[in-house]
Amino acid sequence: MRAVTVQDGDLVVEERPDPAPGAGEILVRVRAAGVNGADILQRKGGYPAPPGSPPDIPGLELAGEVIARGPGAERFAEGDRVMAIVGGGGQAQLAVVHERGASPVPEGLDWPEAGGLPEVFTTAHDALFTQAGLKAGERLLVHGGAGGVGTAAIQLGRAAGARVTATVRNDALRGAVSELGARVVAPEGFVEHGPFDVVLELVGAPNLPDDVKALATGGRVAVIGVGAGFKAELNLVALMGKRGRIHGSTLRARPLEEKAAAARLVERHVLPLFDAGAVRVPVAETFALDDAAAAYERFTAGGKLGKIVLLP
Amino acid sequence: MRAVTVQDGDLVVEERPDPAPGAGEILVRVRAAGVNGADILQRKGGYPAPPGSPPDIPGLELAGEVIARGPGAERFAEGDRVMAIVGGGGQAQLAVVHERGASPVPEGLDWPEAGGLPEVFTTAHDALFTQAGLKAGERLLVHGGAGGVGTAAIQLGRAAGARVTATVRNDALRGAVSELGARVVAPEGFVEHGPFDVVLELVGAPNLPDDVKALATGGRVAVIGVGAGFKAELNLVALMGKRGRIHGSTLRARPLEEKAAAARLVERHVLPLFDAGAVRVPVAETFALDDAAAAYERFTAGGKLGKIVLLP
Repeated sequence: MRAVTVQDGDLVVEERPDPAPGAGEILVRVRAAGVNGADILQRKGGYPAPPGSPPDIPGLELAGEVIARGPGAERFAEGDRVMAIVGGGGQAQLAVVHERGASPVPEGLDWPEAGGLPEVFTTAHDALFTQAGLKAGERLLVHGGAGGVGTAAIQLGRAAGARVTATVRNDALRGAVSELGARVVAPEGFVEHGPFDVVLELVGAPNLPDDVKALATGGRVAVIGVGAGFKAELNLVALMGKRGRIHGSTLRARPLEEKAAAARLVERHVLPLFDAGAVRVPVAETFALDDAAAAYERFTAGGKLGKIVLLP
Repeated sequence: MRAVTVQDGDLVVEERPDPAPGAGEILVRVRAAGVNGADILQRKGGYPAPPGSPPDIPGLELAGEVIARGPGAERFAEGDRVMAIVGGGGQAQLAVVHERGASPVPEGLDWPEAGGLPEVFTTAHDALFTQAGLKAGERLLVHGGAGGVGTAAIQLGRAAGARVTATVRNDALRGAVSELGARVVAPEGFVEHGPFDVVLELVGAPNLPDDVKALATGGRVAVIGVGAGFKAELNLVALMGKRGRIHGSTLRARPLEEKAAAARLVERHVLPLFDAGAVRVPVAETFALDDAAAAYERFTAGGKLGKIVLLP
């Protein structure tokens, strides 16, 4: 199979041995694989794949058809359209996935949408609801509202009855983000648009002091992205005064059982929203697998709405 | 009535007009009133009383007998032994308390114990269970284990089936803290005794980086004291890797309905532990109301086990 590989910080697309599914696993012919911030970090050497995942093939999410099943795998049949979060190895023509980590692709979704769905919608759902406990009627602030996780979070928050505000750096994208269901504000001075019950922090440490200032009493900050830095200043008296909480989380390092539990939650609480037309996957641009380097450049450049997706 | 008052940073015990109970309130002849860190802060001008509380009479907790009831107050009868958290005004011969914020004093408790119970046991219970969700079998670290909140938290954690470790600065108190149910360790190098599922932070910002390092996956830090400083450094990547949470909280600023809810929880989940002999209120020393200044000095000096209590 052909696969994107990281070699001394360079992306090289080359032939690799086909993987074989083990017990409980399925072999997927990858049709689409989203690019995520973690891939960029991994390429720089800062975010190694967890044990059990291909160490040098990036890619945390994929969608495709089941073409073989390992011993005991019975959730899906050959030919089924599936999508999944993986610890790595998604950006290749073939990938092995534990069947409990995979979900069926909703009927209305094409391959680029399905390949760009799992990571960002699972991340956003986990952060907003499992961690921060977002409730109907609450005020949600999404930092980086035009990105993959941002667009997912805005739509999920709105579908759950929250009042959503999003910061968007690129003025050209404000209209599109607004159409997803958010009041759009500039990243500077967001505190004055608060208070917020939940803040989804996708940017990083520089925002944290103002995130705490912008919290309502009992508010929660969910930190899931630190591209702009990770060493934050935290005023404990301010946090105590707000009776606030700060959550940190990543999906990638979780054991199979937790990833499977997250996938079940997405199947129950998110995929029906796709069937109902309440949410969608904005795909900014697609690239052939061989053009992975260009896709990563496009991702890093920013100023896009939604996902960059590779099509192996 | 005589009352402790704060005048330009000095404590002056002097005559004040007797307060009168309003609708739903009870008038309590105060028999005992604990001294807390918040009183020390308030004396320094750093922690003003919330609206509706006496602005210049400190004292966040009290125990005594009901001697009069305002219109509609019917939870208690005159002569009942009650204890309560108040927004201020506890350190006086008389205090007015909303009946929903008051609880009956367990039979086996004397006045100093009852007067030193509400603030620290409510604070510890709220932080450990309502906020941090401490569960049986989990590992709890209590910083400042010899203090009022610390001794309450150790006992509550142990009674709930947690495995409790406590840091104690004063070597002379290690044995007594150990008898409350904790493994006692030195404040330096506590990380090596982890990991911990819940860390109760009573000291402040200097501990926070190591608190995060000492967390188990899914661990929670509950910050309720910042005597050693409030400007903390927070490594967001470390927090994300632990999938950790940091809670901040205070009781004092909460509205009546939340204080009342906390009081009900204490009545249901804590007071029965006193009846069963599973927890107690360690009282380090008592002082007459007129000796409030000496009591505050004793509190600030540290090196005590449990509470300093004024006896009006």
